[in-house]
Amino acid sequence: MSTDTEWIAVDWGTSNLRAWAVGASGEPVATFESGEGMGALSPNDFEPTLLNLIGDHLPEIGSVPVICCGMVGAAQGWAEAPYAAAPCEAPGAKQARRVTAKDPRLDVYILPGVKQMQPADVMRGEETQIAGYIAQNPDFDGILCLPGTHTKWVHISAKEIVSFRTFMTGELFALLSVHSVIQHSVDTEGWDDDAFAAAIADAMSRPQTLASDLFSLRAGMLLHGTGAEASKARLSGLLLGLELAGARPYWLGQKVVLIGSETLSRLYQSALLAQGADASIADGSALTLAGLTAAYLSLKETPE
Amino acid sequence: MSTDTEWIAVDWGTSNLRAWAVGASGEPVATFESGEGMGALSPNDFEPTLLNLIGDHLPEIGSVPVICCGMVGAAQGWAEAPYAAAPCEAPGAKQARRVTAKDPRLDVYILPGVKQMQPADVMRGEETQIAGYIAQNPDFDGILCLPGTHTKWVHISAKEIVSFRTFMTGELFALLSVHSVIQHSVDTEGWDDDAFAAAIADAMSRPQTLASDLFSLRAGMLLHGTGAEASKARLSGLLLGLELAGARPYWLGQKVVLIGSETLSRLYQSALLAQGADASIADGSALTLAGLTAAYLSLKETPE
Repeated sequence: MSTDTEWIAVDWGTSNLRAWAVGASGEPVATFESGEGMGALSPNDFEPTLLNLIGDHLPEIGSVPVICCGMVGAAQGWAEAPYAAAPCEAPGAKQARRVTAKDPRLDVYILPGVKQMQPADVMRGEETQIAGYIAQNPDFDGILCLPGTHTKWVHISAKEIVSFRTFMTGELFALLSVHSVIQHSVDTEGWDDDAFAAAIADAMSRPQTLASDLFSLRAGMLLHGTGAEASKARLSGLLLGLELAGARPYWLGQKVVLIGSETLSRLYQSALLAQGADASIADGSALTLAGLTAAYLSLKETPE
Repeated sequence: MSTDTEWIAVDWGTSNLRAWAVGASGEPVATFESGEGMGALSPNDFEPTLLNLIGDHLPEIGSVPVICCGMVGAAQGWAEAPYAAAPCEAPGAKQARRVTAKDPRLDVYILPGVKQMQPADVMRGEETQIAGYIAQNPDFDGILCLPGTHTKWVHISAKEIVSFRTFMTGELFALLSVHSVIQHSVDTEGWDDDAFAAAIADAMSRPQTLASDLFSLRAGMLLHGTGAEASKARLSGLLLGLELAGARPYWLGQKVVLIGSETLSRLYQSALLAQGADASIADGSALTLAGLTAAYLSLKETPE
């Protein structure tokens, strides 16, 4: 039983759950990870799942704020936290959905995601990483790109999310690598930088031929003996090139900061630099906790 | 036991097997269908599978030609029939791979597919439908489009396959409908013509935003309550519009004949007509048998 905990930070996505018990110093006193993502849970499962994970770090008397972000706030999550509408600041605790927990030690806040009505788009979780980046870089004006299964391109100005677009490039890559006729053509852990760069250029100049360029990966293996390393890198490059062509209004002439896994961020950076874009990589590992911390601190602000 | 059979026609694809016992009149005396496609068979399985299907229609004495097309001639099929290289006529029996069957009543010919080295592309089976169409329309000069899982656009001139491109549009539609984050947004048997037409136009004018337009299907359901009929038709239209943009060099200013399922042919036709293209639908139901017949008849030609 610990009494050092001032509040609990929770990043609850579809597939994973991360939590931090944060002390009075503002630093985590304990960190937790679990595969019990929101996708596998029913609404009644969330509280016991969280208690099982962090219960030893709750106070004996009184309650602590529990600040949650991610898919935990979706309609199928613990409780729905309706989206804030862009343009807007990343939502803080005062926009959060309060949840009355059965355990009186938990004072639960679920942060909203952000929506955009035209073109229709949504995020849940990324807005908290964005809030963390803005907390650390309050004067940032430019583009944040969060590569992943559903890559987000986000225009930030004056601490606001001005607009954003989601490209499901990572999901297309996974679907084609695992389930499609080209799966055997790209079955490798290897890579080919030249094939990747050439495919980026091809897709950016001719995005409309994607579906035939994909089939050519199989035909290239059959007819030219093209290796899986080159084919996999070309698949990745074709899809990323298509995305970069579509996201051009976001990155052209803008300062782009990449927030994501190191491997993916480097791929995006190399492709953007080859286009002459200004692309740098942020250390994204602590941004979610930083964003949750910003939301926690907003709880303490004097009401206006 | 039948003695009416002059030859056996076989269309052996990845998922299905069709065969016809053809009489001296040139008309089928019996028709067979089976789900024992090449994808589920080992090389030694093909002969017993075929005998089980058509054995009752073989002569007691002597042998009959068995003319096969499709994936049966792939490297993993009964025996590999190397591709003919476009530009070329659709291969006839003299280009076929002969197979020595264990049963002396079978005189097996496996027709080659057609390859194109640049851009790398292949077909196996479609060339026989094409041969059937050319046999019935020997003066045809224009574009054959065979919509399906892997749609083929084929330039025909002077009875030759001049060039072709494969677009894996149908496979992308299936992957996204069944395995992706938008599967619940498009889960319906319904349809929406207006959403389809608008999506075709959107994708043709902005093919590069495909991966974000796809994600918007899910966001549109969440934010605007867009129904599954509209979303499914839009998914189909986005993918077909991308294909039409990529296949423009094939159809622009050309006579296009569609060969495929009626539903799919009508979708392609409506989209092409909306672009001002000259698109008609052929009755494709008998073209494979017509192509196999052309190959059989080529066996009887006097050697040059």
